[in-house]
Amino acid sequence: MNNIFAALPDSLEAEVFEKLVDSDNVTIERIVSKGHSSPETGWYDQESNEWVMVLQGEAILAFENSPDVHLTSGDYLNIPAHSRHRVLWTAGDLETIWLAIHYL
Amino acid sequence: MNNIFAALPDSLEAEVFEKLVDSDNVTIERIVSKGHSSPETGWYDQESNEWVMVLQGEAILAFENSPDVHLTSGDYLNIPAHSRHRVLWTAGDLETIWLAIHYL
Repeated sequence: MNNIFAALPDSLEAEVFEKLVDSDNVTIERIVSKGHSSPETGWYDQESNEWVMVLQGEAILAFENSPDVHLTSGDYLNIPAHSRHRVLWTAGDLETIWLAIHYL
Repeated sequence: MNNIFAALPDSLEAEVFEKLVDSDNVTIERIVSKGHSSPETGWYDQESNEWVMVLQGEAILAFENSPDVHLTSGDYLNIPAHSRHRVLWTAGDLETIWLAIHYL
Protein backbone atom coordinates (compact mmCIF):
# COMPACT_ATOMS: atom_id res chain seq x y z
CA MET A 1 0.00 0.00 0.00
CA ASN A 2 1.12 3.52 -0.78
CA ASN A 3 -0.23 6.98 -0.14
CA ILE A 4 -0.81 9.48 -2.93
CA PHE A 5 0.16 12.40 -0.67
CA ALA A 6 3.41 10.81 0.53
CA ALA A 7 6.94 10.65 -0.84
CA LEU A 8 6.66 13.90 -2.75
CA PRO A 9 9.67 14.65 -4.96
CA ASP A 10 12.52 16.59 -3.33
CA SER A 11 13.07 18.64 -6.44
CA LEU A 12 10.30 20.18 -8.51
CA GLU A 13 12.37 22.05 -11.04
CA ALA A 14 10.12 20.29 -13.57
CA GLU A 15 6.79 18.54 -13.08
CA VAL A 16 7.24 14.96 -11.87
CA PHE A 17 5.29 12.13 -13.54
CA GLU A 18 5.16 8.71 -11.82
CA LYS A 19 3.38 5.71 -13.29
CA LEU A 20 1.38 3.80 -10.67
CA VAL A 21 -0.15 1.33 -13.14
CA ASP A 22 1.03 0.69 -16.69
CA SER A 23 -1.00 -1.94 -18.52
CA ASP A 24 -1.80 -2.41 -22.20
CA ASN A 25 -4.98 -0.37 -22.00
CA VAL A 26 -4.57 1.97 -19.08
CA THR A 27 -1.93 4.07 -17.42
CA ILE A 28 -2.50 5.54 -13.98
CA GLU A 29 -0.06 8.23 -12.98
CA ARG A 30 0.58 10.74 -10.26
CA ILE A 31 1.72 14.15 -11.42
CA VAL A 32 3.20 16.68 -9.01
CA SER A 33 3.34 20.32 -10.11
CA LYS A 34 4.38 23.49 -8.29
CA GLY A 35 4.01 26.68 -10.24
CA HIS A 36 4.46 24.87 -13.54
CA SER A 37 2.57 25.19 -16.78
CA SER A 38 2.89 22.61 -19.54
CA PRO A 39 3.69 21.82 -22.25
CA GLU A 40 6.19 24.63 -22.70
CA THR A 41 4.79 25.46 -26.11
CA GLY A 42 1.58 24.49 -27.85
CA TRP A 43 -0.95 21.92 -26.68
CA TYR A 44 -1.17 18.38 -25.39
CA ASP A 45 -2.80 16.41 -28.22
CA GLN A 46 -3.13 12.83 -26.95
CA GLU A 47 -3.94 9.53 -28.63
CA SER A 48 -5.73 8.28 -25.51
CA ASN A 49 -8.52 9.66 -23.36
CA GLU A 50 -7.53 11.13 -20.01
CA TRP A 51 -9.54 11.29 -16.81
CA VAL A 52 -7.86 13.68 -14.43
CA MET A 53 -8.46 14.76 -10.83
CA VAL A 54 -6.70 17.27 -8.59
CA LEU A 55 -6.14 15.79 -5.12
CA GLN A 56 -4.28 18.68 -3.54
CA GLY A 57 -3.45 22.20 -4.67
CA GLU A 58 -4.93 24.19 -7.50
CA ALA A 59 -4.64 24.38 -11.27
CA ILE A 60 -6.10 25.92 -14.39
CA LEU A 61 -6.52 23.85 -17.55
CA ALA A 62 -6.94 25.62 -20.88
CA PHE A 63 -8.64 24.04 -23.89
CA GLU A 64 -8.37 24.99 -27.52
CA ASN A 65 -12.12 24.89 -28.05
CA SER A 66 -13.70 25.50 -24.66
CA PRO A 67 -13.30 27.81 -21.65
CA ASP A 68 -10.57 27.44 -19.03
CA VAL A 69 -11.31 25.15 -16.09
CA HIS A 70 -10.13 25.98 -12.56
CA LEU A 71 -9.59 22.84 -10.45
CA THR A 72 -9.18 22.49 -6.71
CA SER A 73 -9.12 19.42 -4.45
CA GLY A 74 -11.49 16.71 -5.63
CA ASP A 75 -12.34 18.32 -8.97
CA TYR A 76 -12.18 15.96 -11.91
CA LEU A 77 -12.94 15.94 -15.59
CA ASN A 78 -12.61 13.76 -18.65
CA ILE A 79 -10.45 14.91 -21.58
CA PRO A 80 -11.29 12.97 -24.76
CA ALA A 81 -8.44 11.92 -27.05
CA HIS A 82 -7.25 14.77 -29.28
CA SER A 83 -8.98 17.41 -27.23
CA ARG A 84 -6.17 19.94 -27.24
CA HIS A 85 -5.40 21.28 -23.80
CA ARG A 86 -2.65 22.63 -21.63
CA VAL A 87 -1.88 23.29 -17.99
CA LEU A 88 -2.09 27.06 -17.90
CA TRP A 89 -1.22 27.52 -14.23
CA THR A 90 -0.60 25.61 -11.01
CA ALA A 91 -0.28 27.01 -7.48
CA GLY A 92 3.21 28.16 -6.55
CA ASP A 93 2.94 27.87 -2.78
CA LEU A 94 2.27 24.14 -2.43
CA GLU A 95 2.44 20.99 -4.50
CA THR A 96 -0.49 20.31 -6.78
CA ILE A 97 -1.06 16.54 -6.87
CA TRP A 98 -2.93 15.12 -9.86
CA LEU A 99 -4.20 11.65 -10.56
CA ALA A 100 -4.33 11.03 -14.32
CA ILE A 101 -5.81 7.94 -15.95
CA HIS A 102 -5.01 7.48 -19.63
CA TYR A 103 -7.22 4.92 -21.36
CA LEU A 104 -8.23 3.73 -24.80
CA MET B 1 -16.28 19.39 -14.15
CA ASN B 2 -17.45 17.56 -11.05
CA ASN B 3 -16.08 17.09 -7.56
CA ILE B 4 -15.51 13.67 -6.03
CA PHE B 5 -16.48 14.93 -2.56
CA ALA B 6 -19.74 16.55 -3.71
CA ALA B 7 -23.26 15.26 -4.30
CA LEU B 8 -22.98 12.44 -1.81
CA PRO B 9 -25.98 10.10 -1.79
CA ASP B 10 -28.85 11.04 0.56
CA SER B 11 -29.39 7.46 1.55
CA LEU B 12 -26.63 5.03 2.39
CA GLU B 13 -28.70 2.02 3.37
CA ALA B 14 -26.43 0.19 0.94
CA GLU B 15 -23.07 1.20 -0.56
CA VAL B 16 -23.53 3.45 -3.60
CA PHE B 17 -21.56 2.74 -6.81
CA GLU B 18 -21.42 5.42 -9.53
CA LYS B 19 -19.64 4.96 -12.85
CA LEU B 20 -17.64 8.04 -13.83
CA VAL B 21 -16.08 6.47 -16.94
CA ASP B 22 -17.25 3.28 -18.63
CA SER B 23 -15.19 2.36 -21.69
CA ASP B 24 -14.39 -1.01 -23.27
CA ASN B 25 -11.20 -1.42 -21.25
CA VAL B 26 -11.62 0.64 -18.14
CA THR B 27 -14.29 1.56 -15.63
CA ILE B 28 -13.74 4.39 -13.18
CA GLU B 29 -16.19 4.49 -10.32
CA ARG B 30 -16.87 6.30 -7.09
CA ILE B 31 -18.00 4.14 -4.21
CA VAL B 32 -19.50 5.65 -1.07
CA SER B 33 -19.65 3.48 2.06
CA LYS B 34 -20.72 4.24 5.62
CA GLY B 35 -20.34 1.41 8.07
CA HIS B 36 -20.78 -1.18 5.33
CA SER B 37 -18.87 -4.35 4.64
CA SER B 38 -19.17 -6.18 1.33
CA PRO B 39 -19.94 -8.52 -0.26
CA GLU B 40 -22.46 -9.82 2.28
CA THR B 41 -21.03 -13.31 2.03
CA GLY B 42 -17.81 -14.67 0.58
CA TRP B 43 -15.29 -12.75 -1.49
CA TYR B 44 -15.03 -10.43 -4.46
CA ASP B 45 -13.41 -12.51 -7.21
CA GLN B 46 -13.07 -10.21 -10.21
CA GLU B 47 -12.26 -10.77 -13.86
CA SER B 48 -10.45 -7.44 -14.08
CA ASN B 49 -7.68 -5.80 -12.09
CA GLU B 50 -8.68 -3.05 -9.68
CA TRP B 51 -6.70 -0.06 -8.54
CA VAL B 52 -8.40 1.48 -5.54
CA MET B 53 -7.83 4.57 -3.40
CA VAL B 54 -9.61 5.91 -0.33
CA LEU B 55 -10.19 9.67 -0.67
CA GLN B 56 -12.07 10.28 2.56
CA GLY B 57 -12.90 8.12 5.55
CA GLU B 58 -11.41 4.82 6.57
CA ALA B 59 -11.70 1.17 5.60
CA ILE B 60 -10.21 -2.27 6.11
CA LEU B 61 -9.77 -4.64 3.18
CA ALA B 62 -9.33 -8.35 3.84
CA PHE B 63 -7.61 -10.70 1.42
CA GLU B 64 -7.85 -14.47 1.20
CA ASN B 65 -4.11 -14.93 0.96
CA SER B 66 -2.55 -11.88 2.60
CA PRO B 67 -2.98 -9.73 5.71
CA ASP B 68 -5.72 -7.13 6.15
CA VAL B 69 -5.00 -3.62 4.89
CA HIS B 70 -6.19 -0.54 6.74
CA LEU B 71 -6.74 2.43 4.41
CA THR B 72 -7.18 6.11 5.21
CA SER B 73 -7.23 9.19 3.00
CA GLY B 74 -4.85 8.92 0.06
CA ASP B 75 -3.97 5.26 0.58
CA TYR B 76 -4.10 3.18 -2.59
CA LEU B 77 -3.33 -0.33 -3.73
CA ASN B 78 -3.64 -2.57 -6.74
CA ILE B 79 -5.77 -5.71 -6.56
CA PRO B 80 -4.92 -8.14 -9.37
CA ALA B 81 -7.76 -10.01 -11.10
CA HIS B 82 -8.96 -13.01 -9.08
CA SER B 83 -7.22 -11.85 -5.92
CA ARG B 84 -10.05 -12.66 -3.52
CA HIS B 85 -10.83 -9.79 -1.20
CA ARG B 86 -13.61 -8.16 0.75
CA VAL B 87 -14.40 -4.90 2.48
CA LEU B 88 -14.21 -5.98 6.10
CA TRP B 89 -15.10 -2.63 7.66
CA THR B 90 -15.74 1.02 6.83
CA ALA B 91 -16.08 3.95 9.24
CA GLY B 92 -19.57 4.46 10.61
CA ASP B 93 -19.31 8.13 11.50
CA LEU B 94 -18.62 9.63 8.07
CA GLU B 95 -18.79 8.62 4.43
CA THR B 96 -15.84 6.67 3.09
CA ILE B 97 -15.25 7.75 -0.52
CA TRP B 98 -13.37 5.34 -2.78
CA LEU B 99 -12.06 5.75 -6.30
CA ALA B 100 -11.93 2.38 -8.05
CA ILE B 101 -10.42 1.78 -11.47
CA HIS B 102 -11.20 -1.59 -13.05
CA TYR B 103 -8.97 -2.45 -16.00
CA LEU B 104 -7.96 -5.35 -18.20
